[in-house]
Amino acid sequence: MFHVGSRSTVDLEEEITPEEDIVKSRLKEIPHNEKLLSLKYESLDYDNSENQLFLEEERRMSHMGFRCLEIRRWVICGLIGFLTGLIACLIDIAVEELAGYKYSAVKQNIEKFTEFGGLSISLILWAALNSAFVMVGAIAVAFFEPIAAGSGIPQIKCYLNGVKIPCVVRLKTLAIKVFGVICSVAGGLAVGKEGPMIHSGAVVAAGVSQGRSTSLKKDFKIFEYFRRDTEKRDFVSAGAAAGVSAAFGAPVGGVLFSLEEGASFWNQMLTWRIFFASMISTFTLNFFLSIYHGKPGELSSPGLINFGRFDSDKEKNFDYIPFESFLFFPYYFPGGMLGALFNVINYWLTIFRIRYIHRPCLQVMEAMLVAAVTATVAFAMIYFSNDCQPLGQDSTEEYPLQVFIYLLGSMPNRNVICYIAHLQLFCADGEYNSMATAFFNTPERSVRSLFHNPPGSYNPLTLGVFTLVYFVLAVWTYGLTVSAGVFIPSLLIGAAWGRLFGILLSTITSSQSIWADPGKYALIGAAAQLGGIVRMTLSLTVIMVEATGNVTYGFPIMLVLMTAKIVGDYFIEGLYDIHIKLQSVPFLHWDAPPTSHWLTAREVMSSPVTCFNRVERVGRIVDVLSNTSTNHNGFPVVPGKICGLILRSQLIVLLKHKVFVERASSRLSQRRLQLKDFRDAYPRFPPIQSIHVSQDERECMMDLNEFMNPTPYTVPQETSLPRVFKLFRALGLRHLVVVDDENRVVGLVTRKDLARYHLGKDGLEELQLAQT
Amino acid sequence: MFHVGSRSTVDLEEEITPEEDIVKSRLKEIPHNEKLLSLKYESLDYDNSENQLFLEEERRMSHMGFRCLEIRRWVICGLIGFLTGLIACLIDIAVEELAGYKYSAVKQNIEKFTEFGGLSISLILWAALNSAFVMVGAIAVAFFEPIAAGSGIPQIKCYLNGVKIPCVVRLKTLAIKVFGVICSVAGGLAVGKEGPMIHSGAVVAAGVSQGRSTSLKKDFKIFEYFRRDTEKRDFVSAGAAAGVSAAFGAPVGGVLFSLEEGASFWNQMLTWRIFFASMISTFTLNFFLSIYHGKPGELSSPGLINFGRFDSDKEKNFDYIPFESFLFFPYYFPGGMLGALFNVINYWLTIFRIRYIHRPCLQVMEAMLVAAVTATVAFAMIYFSNDCQPLGQDSTEEYPLQVFIYLLGSMPNRNVICYIAHLQLFCADGEYNSMATAFFNTPERSVRSLFHNPPGSYNPLTLGVFTLVYFVLAVWTYGLTVSAGVFIPSLLIGAAWGRLFGILLSTITSSQSIWADPGKYALIGAAAQLGGIVRMTLSLTVIMVEATGNVTYGFPIMLVLMTAKIVGDYFIEGLYDIHIKLQSVPFLHWDAPPTSHWLTAREVMSSPVTCFNRVERVGRIVDVLSNTSTNHNGFPVVPGKICGLILRSQLIVLLKHKVFVERASSRLSQRRLQLKDFRDAYPRFPPIQSIHVSQDERECMMDLNEFMNPTPYTVPQETSLPRVFKLFRALGLRHLVVVDDENRVVGLVTRKDLARYHLGKDGLEELQLAQT
Repeated sequence: MFHVGSRSTVDLEEEITPEEDIVKSRLKEIPHNEKLLSLKYESLDYDNSENQLFLEEERRMSHMGFRCLEIRRWVICGLIGFLTGLIACLIDIAVEELAGYKYSAVKQNIEKFTEFGGLSISLILWAALNSAFVMVGAIAVAFFEPIAAGSGIPQIKCYLNGVKIPCVVRLKTLAIKVFGVICSVAGGLAVGKEGPMIHSGAVVAAGVSQGRSTSLKKDFKIFEYFRRDTEKRDFVSAGAAAGVSAAFGAPVGGVLFSLEEGASFWNQMLTWRIFFASMISTFTLNFFLSIYHGKPGELSSPGLINFGRFDSDKEKNFDYIPFESFLFFPYYFPGGMLGALFNVINYWLTIFRIRYIHRPCLQVMEAMLVAAVTATVAFAMIYFSNDCQPLGQDSTEEYPLQVFIYLLGSMPNRNVICYIAHLQLFCADGEYNSMATAFFNTPERSVRSLFHNPPGSYNPLTLGVFTLVYFVLAVWTYGLTVSAGVFIPSLLIGAAWGRLFGILLSTITSSQSIWADPGKYALIGAAAQLGGIVRMTLSLTVIMVEATGNVTYGFPIMLVLMTAKIVGDYFIEGLYDIHIKLQSVPFLHWDAPPTSHWLTAREVMSSPVTCFNRVERVGRIVDVLSNTSTNHNGFPVVPGKICGLILRSQLIVLLKHKVFVERASSRLSQRRLQLKDFRDAYPRFPPIQSIHVSQDERECMMDLNEFMNPTPYTVPQETSLPRVFKLFRALGLRHLVVVDDENRVVGLVTRKDLARYHLGKDGLEELQLAQT
Repeated sequence: MFHVGSRSTVDLEEEITPEEDIVKSRLKEIPHNEKLLSLKYESLDYDNSENQLFLEEERRMSHMGFRCLEIRRWVICGLIGFLTGLIACLIDIAVEELAGYKYSAVKQNIEKFTEFGGLSISLILWAALNSAFVMVGAIAVAFFEPIAAGSGIPQIKCYLNGVKIPCVVRLKTLAIKVFGVICSVAGGLAVGKEGPMIHSGAVVAAGVSQGRSTSLKKDFKIFEYFRRDTEKRDFVSAGAAAGVSAAFGAPVGGVLFSLEEGASFWNQMLTWRIFFASMISTFTLNFFLSIYHGKPGELSSPGLINFGRFDSDKEKNFDYIPFESFLFFPYYFPGGMLGALFNVINYWLTIFRIRYIHRPCLQVMEAMLVAAVTATVAFAMIYFSNDCQPLGQDSTEEYPLQVFIYLLGSMPNRNVICYIAHLQLFCADGEYNSMATAFFNTPERSVRSLFHNPPGSYNPLTLGVFTLVYFVLAVWTYGLTVSAGVFIPSLLIGAAWGRLFGILLSTITSSQSIWADPGKYALIGAAAQLGGIVRMTLSLTVIMVEATGNVTYGFPIMLVLMTAKIVGDYFIEGLYDIHIKLQSVPFLHWDAPPTSHWLTAREVMSSPVTCFNRVERVGRIVDVLSNTSTNHNGFPVVPGKICGLILRSQLIVLLKHKVFVERASSRLSQRRLQLKDFRDAYPRFPPIQSIHVSQDERECMMDLNEFMNPTPYTVPQETSLPRVFKLFRALGLRHLVVVDDENRVVGLVTRKDLARYHLGKDGLEELQLAQT
């Protein structure tokens, strides 16, 4: 989720001005509305500014030089994968160790109270402990880096789409994110640790590829060539893919995720590098986790979650009959509908939060409340459940102890398991509490149990109640000011009702042979629910297939995800899109709205355009840049006809280095401005206010010829919106100049001009632009 | 392979003229050269011509209309998948049945001669039978549709890249292709039936999506909206993906193949549709083949080839130790080098064929010769081999009978197996001939045996000799005038030397625990060899992973493929690229050559440009179109400044319908020209010669305003080549107008202008343009 608390507005823009700050704080009270489009978000520039400096550098470079660059790109991708894998490993181990520590602290308490029957006091103690964990995590997020809240997937989606979300790829964000995830998972919330990995991978990529950390003020003087939006965005794609890969053990899924969310132009070498990063990432995680688990040779942990094998007990390759995939039919619809319901509730909840819970301390309190309620509800559920199942032969499985594991937050140490295995929680000896199995468990383990436990392990009533309760908890949890993902809770809800339906179907049809395994229905249900919530398509199919390790389920999973998307889209958008919209981000979809052929560039463009002359007076440039009411970023360079485009950031570097015509004579002794100067300032260009220009200097002239992009893309005024959109999107542009047939500038199309139009219920709608 | 025999030149162009024919036949004697760029290939137009007619139609369409279109696209993709799966099924069954029939014909012969010891006569009889099969296939290809020769992958690569290869997606091509593949596989050549599936899928897609067959003169009056290059190319992507999917049971690999080869702009919905087609395709094949094999419920044949499971006998999920993937190291290099060697030999062989074997009858004779030699060599190998292995417990496997199966061409019927199982081929009772196992087998089965047979099944010498011989046969076979793929032979060669290396390594290290299974090395070797030959990257990794059904091998396979590509590229390009180059196809790679920043649009463009006026005299249009020395396809429309672009095909339709200003009065009674008229003529627009224009009509005027694309993409003259390239490639353009700063047309950039520049040994090289 996008965080919109008071902190965020302060950190939002690098180039923030006092006036804007006032405007913002005034507008903060206005409820956020998805009918607005915020002007505060800048675009990334995926199109290189091919000015003279750039061309000179490129022309100087030999073939060997380009090859070295390519090798450096591979090295960076390898590093990204390695570090992302390490971070995933760190999170996993930290969660496990923390839970172990928590356990040893409450162990005495359990022992003391079990004999006297006051187990509830122990449970309440644990609930308090959980709240404490969540509190620490929530404080870190709310007070130090609000952008680290949620899964980070919407932010990364935006970044890959070309929207610059402030602070999203900073080192500090990564630190808070990792810390927050550990706390919230250890705190037993209904969250997963998978989503945040994607954000973490992206930050790692942005950091490594730049060869420096602005936060730490450390410049390694390497990879300087990659200090521009074009290259950085490519690496961030690789980082996001590496994150997915580490989270789900799904390298191909990771690549497809990055492409589905980010790619505008498919480049073979880039894709191949992304795949390399993904592979390294899952391999690193696997390698270190295997060592941690004491089985260094086995490589049994390709991802943070593993669905387990679906076919290990059968000889034949494919263990579902073809018709069955069509009989999964009943599951195609609930996924979309339950997903839509989830999104609708979360939508209203988010609006409520934006309006009333925007102070950090309130946010922390809400998070703590959720943690406490989660524990309490879970306790009550077990207490009132009387679904005691006999402990079968397979007592190696840890059913009865899951309750404690859950309350402790996560996977316990091995000795803990041995200890707890003797508690039956309100059940007779030799039995275990089925509700506890479903409910009190790390979500990852619960999902696996629902997929693989033999038929009869769960009472339908237990599953039904569990679905309902967990659904409510998950909806409430997503959007809290904690770092947490929604993948695993979604899978768990879906697996629960999927299995429930499987059981019901087997009761109805009573043909045990076909319907014998409700675990398959759990898998399909999980896919349906997750698809209904996040509405990802191809990448999600591949992720699910890779996580199950069985290609056979690809077809039904695809059908389910497709139906979930179609049904869900009928009601409301996907969860990530909702949060993106609520933040009024100018997000560009794949195509222009289908019915937008009516519009032409003339109607879409912004005009009049502020232009500069080839040789422009410094005073005018400073005035234009200082004008906060326009705050333009790209300026066509004209004497009448268009002859170039120059960016705010370039002008600022020029002003900072005082590259004035009048100083040309002294510049002969000085060194000439190089691309390096622009790269050093990237990406945090100083605001215009910080640059002092004296009254004398205001009268100087600045020659823009050398620095402007002499060949910006242009379109005639009559071009239809879909055509403009396609050009803009395919090339990842930031500015597109609209010219008349004399090649004179008549307007400028930016991201906001295109994102404004969207398809509403009654056809094409136009969003309003807002300063917030 | 691209076929260049005498037939092909006749069928090459729709708009062929007698003069051109003469030029071509004169130039035919000139040896083909990869330093030339042929002008005979036209581009596809991936950019819609947004003229008034088009915009009117789009604007008339409601939101519901667009939704119906989308549904139709899905239906078409489903159909494509279904039909492609059916065709794959047909090929598989036909090969099997034919082989069975062939067997029953020679069965008596064997029985007669075995007793008398004259087994060699039987073998020679079979060799003759094989030659007969190959002859029938080669005749069909050489005399009826030369474009159906080879695997078809280079042609589809070109098509997806945007080059129109004549006849490549015609129904006749499909029929010949399928027939040819059946013959060549049944004829026992060293070929696979997988590659041609990709071509078949593409043809199916091109046919289905157009809702008509021009060859059969049947128009179903459906899917008319999709009758343009943009839509057709999207569907052909889906068809190619469906083909890959059916061939290897790899739906994701199929999607990635299509994207890697074809995509310029990634579109989520398109990708999702492609995936749907792939899924349907593999599912259809699986379903029908399972029924054919008498196990309708099992779905055990997801693709034409199945590598078998690598982990079925072990409990744990991952059965290779991590270090091993780095110890696969020795295999990283031979793949690239052997692949390069394969390509170099095939390159010279192809040049030889182009020069001397371009007559169909010679081509047929060569194919027959190869078939006979293959059989003879195989026979000699077995005869002189004394590698007799004891028949183990696992006598259910069909080792000893493979020789007969091979000689018969393919998989025999079940009763055949039972019969043959008692022959030991020059070995003592209770033993089987190891060389026969390796050599005489359908390639698919040999590959599986090499992957999965227990250690000790093969003698190293046998493997070494087999590798050498099969390598030579496969090199010789690829490029014959038969429909056949190179995937399976490559895999087989690689599997053989991979297994050989595995055995040698285990002898050297003598640590049986790690190196116990040479099958894994066979898999890695197969990947290395295939990668070294075709140089595909991401898609091939995924295909291999999907075909093995085990994600674990992804990492080593990726490393191997990457190394094979790097090593191989050092020596020579990939096999498909060689054949594309030898045909002088203007193929656009992903990026402009890295050192091409020196060049600008001014140097690259063709000029002067033939322009038309908004209202142009018919006589001039006819003259320009009839001028065979230029043969332009796109004409900027100007009165001074650029105001549109019109295509040859559009002008021809206008001329055909006599849309002249002077007839405007009578046109009021006539119906107005609609998009439908252009679509009906697509894609085989009549040549200008077939349109009769009287002398009176030559003086009429034609108003182009309504039909030209009023907003063509333009670039200034100073734009650097990489920038032009990126725009051209990302949008899939056919013509890009170069303008000066007054917006006057100064040049036109087409595919050939960009494809001309490539990176040679000494930097940027420029290819010559040729009329052939």
